[in-house]
Amino acid sequence: MTYLTAQLSEEKVFKDPVHSYVHVRDQVIWDLIGTREFQRLRRIKQLGTTYITFHGAEHSRFNHSLGVYEIIRRILENFTEELNWDHEERMLCLTAALLHDLGHGPYSHCFEKVFDLDHEHFTKQIILGNTEVNQILTKVSRDFPKKVAEVINKTYHDKLIVSLISSQIDADRMDYLQRDAYYTGVSYGHFDMARILRVMRPLDDKIVIKASGMHAVEDYIMSRYQMYWQVYFHPVSRSAEVILSKILHRVKALHINGYQFKQEPTHFYSFFTGEISLEDYIKLDETIMLFYFHEWINEQDVILSDLCSRFLDRKLFKYTNFDMKDDMGKLQELRQLFDRVGINPDYYLVIDSSSDLPYDFYRPGEEGERLPIYLQLENGELKELSEASDIVESISGKRRTDHKLYYPADIINKLKEHEEKHRIQALLGMN
Amino acid sequence: MTYLTAQLSEEKVFKDPVHSYVHVRDQVIWDLIGTREFQRLRRIKQLGTTYITFHGAEHSRFNHSLGVYEIIRRILENFTEELNWDHEERMLCLTAALLHDLGHGPYSHCFEKVFDLDHEHFTKQIILGNTEVNQILTKVSRDFPKKVAEVINKTYHDKLIVSLISSQIDADRMDYLQRDAYYTGVSYGHFDMARILRVMRPLDDKIVIKASGMHAVEDYIMSRYQMYWQVYFHPVSRSAEVILSKILHRVKALHINGYQFKQEPTHFYSFFTGEISLEDYIKLDETIMLFYFHEWINEQDVILSDLCSRFLDRKLFKYTNFDMKDDMGKLQELRQLFDRVGINPDYYLVIDSSSDLPYDFYRPGEEGERLPIYLQLENGELKELSEASDIVESISGKRRTDHKLYYPADIINKLKEHEEKHRIQALLGMN
Amino acid sequence: MTYLTAQLSEEKVFKDPVHSYVHVRDQVIWDLIGTREFQRLRRIKQLGTTYITFHGAEHSRFNHSLGVYEIIRRILENFTEELNWDHEERMLCLTAALLHDLGHGPYSHCFEKVFDLDHEHFTKQIILGNTEVNQILTKVSRDFPKKVAEVINKTYHDKLIVSLISSQIDADRMDYLQRDAYYTGVSYGHFDMARILRVMRPLDDKIVIKASGMHAVEDYIMSRYQMYWQVYFHPVSRSAEVILSKILHRVKALHINGYQFKQEPTHFYSFFTGEISLEDYIKLDETIMLFYFHEWINEQDVILSDLCSRFLDRKLFKYTNFDMKDDMGKLQELRQLFDRVGINPDYYLVIDSSSDLPYDFYRPGEEGERLPIYLQLENGELKELSEASDIVESISGKRRTDHKLYYPADIINKLKEHEEKHRIQALLGMN
Amino acid sequence: MTYLTAQLSEEKVFKDPVHSYVHVRDQVIWDLIGTREFQRLRRIKQLGTTYITFHGAEHSRFNHSLGVYEIIRRILENFTEELNWDHEERMLCLTAALLHDLGHGPYSHCFEKVFDLDHEHFTKQIILGNTEVNQILTKVSRDFPKKVAEVINKTYHDKLIVSLISSQIDADRMDYLQRDAYYTGVSYGHFDMARILRVMRPLDDKIVIKASGMHAVEDYIMSRYQMYWQVYFHPVSRSAEVILSKILHRVKALHINGYQFKQEPTHFYSFFTGEISLEDYIKLDETIMLFYFHEWINEQDVILSDLCSRFLDRKLFKYTNFDMKDDMGKLQELRQLFDRVGINPDYYLVIDSSSDLPYDFYRPGEEGERLPIYLQLENGELKELSEASDIVESISGKRRTDHKLYYPADIINKLKEHEEKHRIQALLGMN
Repeated sequence: MTYLTAQLSEEKVFKDPVHSYVHVRDQVIWDLIGTREFQRLRRIKQLGTTYITFHGAEHSRFNHSLGVYEIIRRILENFTEELNWDHEERMLCLTAALLHDLGHGPYSHCFEKVFDLDHEHFTKQIILGNTEVNQILTKVSRDFPKKVAEVINKTYHDKLIVSLISSQIDADRMDYLQRDAYYTGVSYGHFDMARILRVMRPLDDKIVIKASGMHAVEDYIMSRYQMYWQVYFHPVSRSAEVILSKILHRVKALHINGYQFKQEPTHFYSFFTGEISLEDYIKLDETIMLFYFHEWINEQDVILSDLCSRFLDRKLFKYTNFDMKDDMGKLQELRQLFDRVGINPDYYLVIDSSSDLPYDFYRPGEEGERLPIYLQLENGELKELSEASDIVESISGKRRTDHKLYYPADIINKLKEHEEKHRIQALLGMN
Repeated sequence: MTYLTAQLSEEKVFKDPVHSYVHVRDQVIWDLIGTREFQRLRRIKQLGTTYITFHGAEHSRFNHSLGVYEIIRRILENFTEELNWDHEERMLCLTAALLHDLGHGPYSHCFEKVFDLDHEHFTKQIILGNTEVNQILTKVSRDFPKKVAEVINKTYHDKLIVSLISSQIDADRMDYLQRDAYYTGVSYGHFDMARILRVMRPLDDKIVIKASGMHAVEDYIMSRYQMYWQVYFHPVSRSAEVILSKILHRVKALHINGYQFKQEPTHFYSFFTGEISLEDYIKLDETIMLFYFHEWINEQDVILSDLCSRFLDRKLFKYTNFDMKDDMGKLQELRQLFDRVGINPDYYLVIDSSSDLPYDFYRPGEEGERLPIYLQLENGELKELSEASDIVESISGKRRTDHKLYYPADIINKLKEHEEKHRIQALLGMN
Repeated sequence: MTYLTAQLSEEKVFKDPVHSYVHVRDQVIWDLIGTREFQRLRRIKQLGTTYITFHGAEHSRFNHSLGVYEIIRRILENFTEELNWDHEERMLCLTAALLHDLGHGPYSHCFEKVFDLDHEHFTKQIILGNTEVNQILTKVSRDFPKKVAEVINKTYHDKLIVSLISSQIDADRMDYLQRDAYYTGVSYGHFDMARILRVMRPLDDKIVIKASGMHAVEDYIMSRYQMYWQVYFHPVSRSAEVILSKILHRVKALHINGYQFKQEPTHFYSFFTGEISLEDYIKLDETIMLFYFHEWINEQDVILSDLCSRFLDRKLFKYTNFDMKDDMGKLQELRQLFDRVGINPDYYLVIDSSSDLPYDFYRPGEEGERLPIYLQLENGELKELSEASDIVESISGKRRTDHKLYYPADIINKLKEHEEKHRIQALLGMN
Repeated sequence: MTYLTAQLSEEKVFKDPVHSYVHVRDQVIWDLIGTREFQRLRRIKQLGTTYITFHGAEHSRFNHSLGVYEIIRRILENFTEELNWDHEERMLCLTAALLHDLGHGPYSHCFEKVFDLDHEHFTKQIILGNTEVNQILTKVSRDFPKKVAEVINKTYHDKLIVSLISSQIDADRMDYLQRDAYYTGVSYGHFDMARILRVMRPLDDKIVIKASGMHAVEDYIMSRYQMYWQVYFHPVSRSAEVILSKILHRVKALHINGYQFKQEPTHFYSFFTGEISLEDYIKLDETIMLFYFHEWINEQDVILSDLCSRFLDRKLFKYTNFDMKDDMGKLQELRQLFDRVGINPDYYLVIDSSSDLPYDFYRPGEEGERLPIYLQLENGELKELSEASDIVESISGKRRTDHKLYYPADIINKLKEHEEKHRIQALLGMN
C-alpha cells in the first residue's frame, strides 16, 4: 500500500455542529490536518469582523476547511459509480477541498486590500513552498503539490475536478452558508444540502443538477442572497473593517515617514515593502495583529492610538447611506469641515462599498469563472438555472451595491466649534 | 427618570443562537456592554483549550455573559408578580448576571493554578476599581458597585438574589451547558430550560422548583453530568492545558534564573511576583499570550521553544490512565528513565486530575455554597431533589475523579537508547 | 370579574413542537377548546391527502388552530402598549384566531368542490348555531358570537382586527407554513417568525412591518412559494384527491340513479340534496368517511369498489403533464379509446389543476381581500412590499398554474386490446 | 437477477422528519410498502390516546415502521465489512424491521387487554396468511415468510439477526423514542443515534457497543426513562384509555345480554367470541372504531352513550393517586357510595396501573428476552452496561409502578345526594 492509499487503523471523527461528523480515513488527510500551516487557520476567524455584530460568529477558518472537505468526501462517495476515478483523482479533490483557504490571513478581506495581496497566491505558495503541507503532498507524488495548486487555482486540465471545488454551487459555498448561519444564529442560510447532494451528478466536464432538485437549488440561491445582505455586508461589521484598514494605512504611513514606534511593527515590515517572505506571511495571524493593536494604544500618534482602541474596545464609527453620484459635493464639504476642526478626513471620513451578484448565467468574454448552474431535464437536456426558475431569473445578473459613509460620531458630538459641528451633523444626518 | 431606570429609545437585540435573541432595554446594561472591560471578554474563550478537541468550541466569554444576563432577565420577567422588588434590586440581579465572569483571564483554569490567582477576586477588582465598568455602576448609585460585587461574591445580605445568580441550577450553569453543547455540536447539554423557568419560583430566601418540573431538572442534572465527562474533562483538551501550564512554569523559572529572553515576558512580570496591578490583569488576554508563544518558539531554551510550538501547532502529549495508589512506583521509575535519556520529567511527565461532584445535597459545615435544589410539592412542602429523584440520588454526593499521565510520545519514539526506550514504552503502554 | 375577564387558577400549557408551548390563561379560551365542535378538529387532517406523499403530514386542524391562537396571543402581548384595547377587542382576536377553521370538513378542499360547499359558511354556522361553542361565546355577551363570525368573515367594522386574522402575512399562514414544514420534515417553510412578530406594528386600520424587517418577510414569502409547489401541490397527493372526488361523485350518481347500496350513504344524504343540517355537517369527519370507503369496497358497483380500495390501499393514478391548449385533441382521443376498451373516462381520466399567486399587491376592483404588505420606513412612510424587494417583485402578481392528467396505469397495462393499449400508452407517454 | 436482489431503476426516498430521508432500493421492500396490510398502518396511531395530552402525537405506525426499517438499513450498511452475509440474511433483517408492527390494531395496548389478544400473533398471521404481504415474501422464497415471522418472534436460529431487531437497544426503540419526542415536541427523547450506530458492532450472536460509546448509551437509557414517565404513562392519556376499555367492555356485555343496538357491533362480533378471522382483524382500524363510537352516542344505553361521547369529545375522567395496599378500604367504600347514588362503579371507578423497568441486566430463568447491553472494552472483554455506568446501575432492575384511580368528576359534582356527594369528594380528594 502506498502513502496515497494508506488508511488509518481506525477512522477518526471530528464532532461538527453543521455536518454532525467529519470523517477521516486517509492517512494523507489526517497528516495534512496536523500541519502547523493548517492548524494556523484556527487563529483566523472565518468571518473577520462579523463577530462585532453577530457575537456568535467567532468560528475559525479551520472549522470551515474541515467542513468543505467533508462535503466533498460525501459527494465523491455518492459519485463512486459514475466516476471511474483512480485514487489520485479522488485524493486531489479531497486535498484541494481541505486546503483551499490555506492562504487566508487575518481579516483577509481588509488586509488584502490594504497591502494589495491575494490569499490565493499564498495558498499556492504554502502548497508549493518549504512547508509541512508541501512535504506531505510531495510524499504522495512529486507533482502532486502542483496539481493541488492548479485545482485550487482553477487551471487544472480536468474541469470536472475544478468545478467540484469552485462553482456557483460548490462545497465551499454550501459549507460557509450553513456554518455562518449556524454560528451567527440567523434563520437564513438553511437549505436542503442532503437533497442537493443527491441530485448532483457529474456530466462530462461539469456538475449538473437533476431538474427535480431545482427548488432545493432555488432555496440555496436565496439563502446565499439573504446571508450576503443580512450578515456578510452588515454595516456595523464594515465599520470595524473600516477602522482596521485605517490602522494598517496609518502604521504604514508612519513607518514610511520615519515615526519612532514604542512597539515597532516588525511583523509588518515585509508587507510595507511588498516583498513578503512565506514565513512572514504564515506567522501573521489574528493574535499577532491584535497584540500590536493593544500596544499601539500607547503610541504618541493620536490617530493610531485612537483607531486601535476603537477596534479593540468596539467604539465604532457611525454610518449613513451615501450616493456615489449625488453626494460627492457633500463629501467635499465634509472633508473641508473636518480639516477645519482638526479631524483628519483621510482616516475619519470613509466610504465603504459592498456589492454582490447573487447568481449569474454565463457571459462570454467576461468573468470566465462564473460558470452557470445547469439543470438536467428528464430527457437528458441541460437548461441553465435562471431559464427554469422565475425566482433565480429575477435576481440573476443583477449587481446590487451599497455605499456607506463612516464617521466618528463621538468626536463630532464633542466638538467645540459650534458652527462647523452643526453643519457636519446636518450633512451627516446625525440626530 | 434616573439613570437606574433610564430606557433606550429603542430596544436593542442581539441575535443569539442559544436564546434566539438577547434583549436590552436598560441604558445601564447597554452602557456596561460597551465598556472595554466587558468587550475584552471577546478575546477569552469560554472553554479554554477545548477547541483543540471540539473544533466548534471557539466561542468567547462575551457570548456566555450575554446569555446569562438574558436568562436572568427572563426569570425576573416571570417573577414580576411574586417579587415586589424595587428597580435597584432588579438591576442588581441583571448587572451581577452580566458581569459575573468579568475577571476571567485567558485559559483561566490553568492560568489561575500556575499563578495561584482567583478570577473572582479580579471580577471584584474590576467592579470596584478604576474602570469604565465602575464608572457606570457608580452612576447608578455610590454603593451600587459594592452591592454588585457582594452578589457575585455570594456575601450579599439578600440570599434570594444570591441564589438567583449562584446555585446548583443557576442562570450561569443553564447558559453554559446549552451554549457549550451548541458550539461543540454534541448532543448532550440539552434540557427544557423554558420549562425550568416556568416551574421556578422564589420562596423566602431561595429559589424552589415546583414538583411537577422534577423531570426537567433531572434532565438538566444529567446534561451537566454528561457535559463534564464528555466535553469539559476530555483528555485531549487537558493535554493542551498540561502543555500550557508547563509553558508558564518554564517562563517563570527561566525569568527567576536570569535567562536572557529574545522576547522578554514583560506582560507577565507582575504575575511572577504576585503583585498584579488591575491594569496589567485587564490587558492580558489570549491574543497577548499567544503572541508570546509565537515568539518564544525562537528562544534558545529548548524546553520553552518545544512547548510553545506544541501548543500552537497542536503537537500534543499522549496520555494513559494513572492510578494514584498503584502506579506511584511506575511513576518513579519513569522519572528516573526520563532523566537518564535527557527528557526533563518536570515538564514532560505530568499527572492531570479531573474531578466532579455532579450534584450534592446540603452538608452542614462543608462546602457551604453547595445549596441543594428544593422541589415544592403541591401541598407547599419542600423536598430536597435527591430525595425525590432516583436518578439524582444515584449520582448525588458521589465525587468521580479521573487521573491521566501525559507524556511526549513523539520524543520517546525517537529515542536512540534502545533499552530505556523499550522500558518507557512498556511502562506507558505505548504501542 | 366577568366571564370575559375570568382567568384560570393556573395557566394551562400545551406542549407544541412548533411554538414550544401554547399558553392559555383565559377561561373563555379554555372552555372553547373543550367543546365537541373544537375537539372534532382532531379528526380532520390539516393537509388532507398530503400524508400520502409526505408520511409525516398526519397532523390535524386541532393542532394548527391552537398554533394560530398562540401566534395571535403573542402579537397582542407585543402590542399591549400600542393598542389601547378593552378586554373584548382582545378576546375577539383570540377567539377568532382559535375558531377560524372550525367549519372545515374532512378533506375539505375536495369535499367542498364536489358538493359546492364553503367551509367559511359552516364556521359561521357553528359559531352562530345551536352548539357548545355558541353557548360559550354567548356567555361573553349576547352579540359576541356575531362579532367573532364577522371577524372571521372579514366584514367586521374594525379592519385592524380583521387584518390581524386575515392578510397576506397573518397568523394563520405563519402557523401553517411552519407547522406543515415541521410535520412533513421538509427544509422549506422556515422563516424567522420571532423577528417578524417584533417588527409588526398596528397602524390605523392595518398591520405594517418596520422596513428593517423586510428580509425576514422576503424569507416568509419565499417559504410560502416553496411550500406551495413542493408540498401542497404535490402531484401524488393530488392523485389521491382526484380519486377521493371521484368516489364522492360516484356515490352521488349511484344514489340518484337508485342503486341499492349494501352500505347506504346515510351520512351523505343531505350533502346530495344540498340541504345540509348543521348537525349532519358536524358529525362528518374523516373517520366517518373512511368507514364508508372501507364498506364500499364490497359494493357490486365496480367503479365505486375500485376507487375506494385505491384510496384506502394507496393504489393511485399515475399522471402526466397536460397543456390546456395543445393537449385537448389528445384528451378527446383518449376518452374515445377509454370508452372503447371499457374504462369509464369520467372517473378514470381526470385533469387536475393547481394554481397559486404567491404574493400580490393591491388591485383595485378585483380580489379585494388581497391586502398588500406594507413596510414602514424610518421616516414613517409606507411602501408596498414588492416595490421595496426585488425578489418579491419578481414573483408578485404572477399566477402559476400546473395541469396534470391522471389515469390508472395498472388497468391500462393489463388491457387485452393491444392496439388500443399501445395507442393509449403512447398518448400518455407511459413507458 | 432474482426477485430477492432486484433493485428499483431509481432509488425511492421518503422525506422523514426524524431520519431526514428513508431510502429504498430493493424491489421487495418497495412492494411490501405498497401492500394494503402495510398501508393499513397509516390508520393506526403510534401512540394510541397520547394525542389527547400531547396534541402533536398524531403520527401513525406506518411512520414508525419506515423509521425502524431505515435504522436497520443504516446499521447493515455499517456492518458490510464485519458481516459476511448473503443477500437473504440482509433482506431478512430489512423485512423483519419493516413488518415488525404489522399486527398492531387500533389503540392496541387497550384493545389487546380487553379482548385478550396479542398483536405479535397477528403480525405472524399476516406474514403467513393469505395476504398481499405473504405473496411478496413468498416470491423471495417459499420459506422466507416463515423465517421473517421467526425473526420477529425471536425464535429464529441466528440470534444475531434476532438481537438486531429486538433487544434493549434495538432499532425499534431507537426509532420510537426519537419519533415520539419529535411529534410530541418534548425535549426528552434525544440521544446521539449516529454515534450509537458508529459504536455498534456484531460479535458472535449479539450486538455489542464499543466502550467509548458508553455515554451515548447512557443518554439513550435516560431518554427512554424520561419518555416513559413524561409521555407514555401520562395520566391524562391513560384516562382516555380507561374510557376506551370501558366502552369495549360495555359493548361486549350488552351484546352478550342481548341488547338491541341501533348500530350493531358487527365488526366486533368475532372479537367477542375470540374466534377472530384474519380478514376481520385487518379490517379493524381506528376509523372503524371511531365510526361506531360516533353512532353509539345515540344508543339508549346511557353508559355506552356517555362513554362514547366522553371519548370523542374529550370529556375525560379525573384521577387521584392510589395505593394498592392502603387504599383498598377506601375503594370499597367508594364503590358502595357509587352504587348508592346510581353510578355504576364497574365503569366509573377504575384503577389503572403503569409500570416500567427502564433497564435490566440478565436474570437467568426469568424474562429471558431481556438481553443485557454489553460494552466491549479496548482489550476485547465484554462488560454488562450497568456494571460500567453508575447512572444505569442506579435505575437498573428497579421496577417503578404508578397506580391511579379514575372517576367522573363532572357527574359527582352534579349529584343531588349531598351526604354521599361530600363523602365521595372527600375520599377522592376533590376540591
